[in-house]
Amino acid sequence: MTPTPPSERTRVRRYNWLARYDRDTIVAILDAIPHCHIGYVADGQPLVTPTLHWREGDQLYWHGSAASRMIRAIEGAEVCLTVSAIDGLVMARSAFNFNVNHRSVMVFGRPSKVTDPAAKEAHLRTMVNRLIPGQWERLRPMKPNELEATTVMSMPFDEASAKVRVGPPEDDETDYAFPVWAGVIPIRTEVLAPEPDPRNLPGVEMPAEALAFRP
Amino acid sequence: MTPTPPSERTRVRRYNWLARYDRDTIVAILDAIPHCHIGYVADGQPLVTPTLHWREGDQLYWHGSAASRMIRAIEGAEVCLTVSAIDGLVMARSAFNFNVNHRSVMVFGRPSKVTDPAAKEAHLRTMVNRLIPGQWERLRPMKPNELEATTVMSMPFDEASAKVRVGPPEDDETDYAFPVWAGVIPIRTEVLAPEPDPRNLPGVEMPAEALAFRP
Repeated sequence: MTPTPPSERTRVRRYNWLARYDRDTIVAILDAIPHCHIGYVADGQPLVTPTLHWREGDQLYWHGSAASRMIRAIEGAEVCLTVSAIDGLVMARSAFNFNVNHRSVMVFGRPSKVTDPAAKEAHLRTMVNRLIPGQWERLRPMKPNELEATTVMSMPFDEASAKVRVGPPEDDETDYAFPVWAGVIPIRTEVLAPEPDPRNLPGVEMPAEALAFRP
Repeated sequence: MTPTPPSERTRVRRYNWLARYDRDTIVAILDAIPHCHIGYVADGQPLVTPTLHWREGDQLYWHGSAASRMIRAIEGAEVCLTVSAIDGLVMARSAFNFNVNHRSVMVFGRPSKVTDPAAKEAHLRTMVNRLIPGQWERLRPMKPNELEATTVMSMPFDEASAKVRVGPPEDDETDYAFPVWAGVIPIRTEVLAPEPDPRNLPGVEMPAEALAFRP
């Protein structure tokens, strides 16, 4: 994909050699890390709300209660949606070069509500089935009042930047002669065995897809 | 500890039965999850920057380049520092009751710079030694220009709220008769074996503390 040139606000300043603006990198991070932090301003006050997002094509989606402070504040307003994960502790030879391996994406935009009920339900179905394929069809069907109480927000990610750091420490050249151990301690997300609800009906079977779940 | 009564902006609205305002809960989350997202406003635009924080007593600290956009924008300004981790996917019997087990803390405040160079160095030492005990003393000593290029920010967390969800799904009472598997898929952070830098000097030994590293 052709890299999108950064805008004034997405241009990465710090560690700018780690910056990526190509859609493939941005999509890979947005899809791999479903946990985002949405920054917005309410009454002049910055707020950061963690939530789960998902992507469909060129749009990001997330949902919330129709009555939530975040949902009410962000419609049509500027938000900054940041996704980040730490992949390792980079133990350099100096404190100054200590670092973390990480992936992050920062998206700027103005979210809008999905107003059509059928479209909203289709997006929620996509969210559930991305987590556990086929699960939407196994669940107790959604009720109209539940659909009404749920807001789905959507935002393009055409104004976005990514930062990726991988690999060993990058020390000052003279520091490689300093006798201290250096390296990386990798960190990753681990998924454990599913824990059945004690109130499961006798005979209900865990869907095989639950065993394959990766966030 | 006595719970601090929530302020108008820390009072949790959504899922408010998950809210906690006691210092022990807040401290436990701030200490267990070193990865935070700092929300601030620059030229009317919300920005969310991921970084690492650490706690000393009643103050939170983080550091950055003295020249960074975030560091320049936040001194004395309102910020919202949010820490959050997802601990599991809660597979309920309806899409509406799907959830995530999670821990989060939201802190409001106005950060200030640590200006005294000796204090700044002491805080950086604490940061490094919290990650890997004793590592500061093993590293190539910090240079005055490095200390100058590093800004340490500090902020109290006396205006904070936490949210914690644990345990099995909470379904509508009538849904417990619906024949679908329900349960929790736990998620956690895994630390892998340290990867030595290929440029390590022969004979340098990995500190035992690196093996005990937990974020």
